[in-house]
Amino acid sequence: MRTLPLDKVFQLIEPGPVVLVSTARKGRRPNLMTLTWHLAMNFTPPLIGCVIGPWDYSYAALRATRECVIAIPGVDLAEKVVGIGNCSGQEVDKFRAFRLTPLPAEKVCAPLVAECLANLECRLVDATLSRKFGFLVLEAVRAWTHPGRREQRTFHANGDGTFKVDGRTLNLKKLMTKYPEFT
Amino acid sequence: MRTLPLDKVFQLIEPGPVVLVSTARKGRRPNLMTLTWHLAMNFTPPLIGCVIGPWDYSYAALRATRECVIAIPGVDLAEKVVGIGNCSGQEVDKFRAFRLTPLPAEKVCAPLVAECLANLECRLVDATLSRKFGFLVLEAVRAWTHPGRREQRTFHANGDGTFKVDGRTLNLKKLMTKYPEFT
Repeated sequence: MRTLPLDKVFQLIEPGPVVLVSTARKGRRPNLMTLTWHLAMNFTPPLIGCVIGPWDYSYAALRATRECVIAIPGVDLAEKVVGIGNCSGQEVDKFRAFRLTPLPAEKVCAPLVAECLANLECRLVDATLSRKFGFLVLEAVRAWTHPGRREQRTFHANGDGTFKVDGRTLNLKKLMTKYPEFT
Repeated sequence: MRTLPLDKVFQLIEPGPVVLVSTARKGRRPNLMTLTWHLAMNFTPPLIGCVIGPWDYSYAALRATRECVIAIPGVDLAEKVVGIGNCSGQEVDKFRAFRLTPLPAEKVCAPLVAECLANLECRLVDATLSRKFGFLVLEAVRAWTHPGRREQRTFHANGDGTFKVDGRTLNLKKLMTKYPEFT
């Protein structure tokens, strides 16, 4: 895996892919959840907002450790990702059941997911809207990509068990006259 | 246009498409902005979070009226959408410049965008994190789709002037064992 500069992190979240969230609470096995309700909130430091609440088993670990990893799967992992979203870490050792490899992160206790396209080590920075909306703000403090990986397409949840796979890329950089620094 | 039940609204936001936001302040021409930082936050009532701040010309109108429309463009509108994101409503009459048709909404003062795939009439319901993160929570109070429209594909911003167009649809409903009610 290769480190990704933190000012590029928003580019991984902005397209809206399905992601995994890993957590690790002291003395317990690490866990994974599937997340589709998230957004980019800032360039640098890279902030990511998400809806994770008490109804998610991962919530307690995230609140207790204030750390997690957001891992972005390629579409080749879609069946595993949906499976992960349809069982609970309370009953299932998800890394083992879905044959995914936890790797030690550098700045957080939660593990990276070796098989994913990218991994973002995150710290919880704001929980003001947690009680009202289940909304949490994370800051990515270290980012990794997997450039040698063959399948680089992500996928997007339609909320009904169907998903849109990335199709062709449209290049409209020539129209970015107001923000040439991003192109 | 056909009304969409409000419990289906999250399905339009969850995949993470590029959207337009229309606003209309009394006595001024309606305006449009391009938005790529947003997320689904609740099923019913449908809540949508987004980053829109004082750096956006639309922000003042949205805060003053507490209303907007989120319009979801098809990929055939991509050049217009990027153009809209690269100029300001302070100088440009965007509906006119980009040849888009404002239609009266039913519950809000901001106009629908006739050419879009779907339109969500929204009210601002929470601005607690506005000052700190530019984060606003909207509630969709009426929703419309355009089922006869030929091009139904949306597109996703990579944050660098390139976009991913929706590709094929992956059907994994059989794996949604925990949430059969959504499939």
